[in-house]
Amino acid sequence: MQVTRATLGVVLRRDYEGQVCSIARTLEILGDRWTLLIVRDSFLGRRRFDEFRQSLGVPTNVLADRLDRLVAAGIFERVAYSERPPRHEYRLTAKGTELRVALVALMQWGDRHLSGPPPRIVRRRRDGAPVTAAIVATDGALVDPRELESVPGPGARGAP
Amino acid sequence: MQVTRATLGVVLRRDYEGQVCSIARTLEILGDRWTLLIVRDSFLGRRRFDEFRQSLGVPTNVLADRLDRLVAAGIFERVAYSERPPRHEYRLTAKGTELRVALVALMQWGDRHLSGPPPRIVRRRRDGAPVTAAIVATDGALVDPRELESVPGPGARGAP
Repeated sequence: MQVTRATLGVVLRRDYEGQVCSIARTLEILGDRWTLLIVRDSFLGRRRFDEFRQSLGVPTNVLADRLDRLVAAGIFERVAYSERPPRHEYRLTAKGTELRVALVALMQWGDRHLSGPPPRIVRRRRDGAPVTAAIVATDGALVDPRELESVPGPGARGAP
Repeated sequence: MQVTRATLGVVLRRDYEGQVCSIARTLEILGDRWTLLIVRDSFLGRRRFDEFRQSLGVPTNVLADRLDRLVAAGIFERVAYSERPPRHEYRLTAKGTELRVALVALMQWGDRHLSGPPPRIVRRRRDGAPVTAAIVATDGALVDPRELESVPGPGARGAP
């Protein structure tokens, strides 16, 4: 389902504190699965229009639209790599690179529950140490999701 | 955009190792934003059909469909809480609860880049310690997303 700003206006009803929910705001940008798969491809080293098109089989006009949105959102930057002929590629910004935590979490959830042996492994580059997306407290301890609570923050509706 | 199994068949081309990608498989289940927002609501303590409907403003038939899919996927379980009249609610399973890592990662990315002061804060229940979704190596060290690499795993196409 396409969720546009208009339908999000329905999702985020004015009488609902969720209208200032960062998950909803993030999903408004990352929107459809093409977009998340394009970002995933970027983490796999793809940068050029034709690389994304070939790997995803996404129609050219859709891919162009999604790349434009990712640039507008500051997740990708468009960088020239040739002047004659003019050619550019799409690189993750620092903001885009931070999305990797969420993508690794989605991947590892799928690994545990859907995939059997993991199709890909994410590891620390310098020594190949396996890594895990996890919830960490300020004291460095890993926190089980069952031990979490969600409370209104300073940006909540009606907060001082 | 609605991504059905048919269009995913295009996304995951047979000549592409990504066809065994756990991110794509996870997104096939979590699909549209309604579904992720329903799961988010569940983490906020909502369990009953009317609670989801009121908080999200989602049409009744859409909500019923998404809840059925979440039950079929083993993310929610349907539990009777009244026999007369028959009433049930939707509770996260252990598998569903593990999605919280990805949702906290999406929320905190939005907090940092889209929202200003955080609308909600996730913390450890027993002491209120703030928590962060992060990438952790086997030695317990936090790993910057730029220091990660992705390599084929034992479930990769053509792996032994």
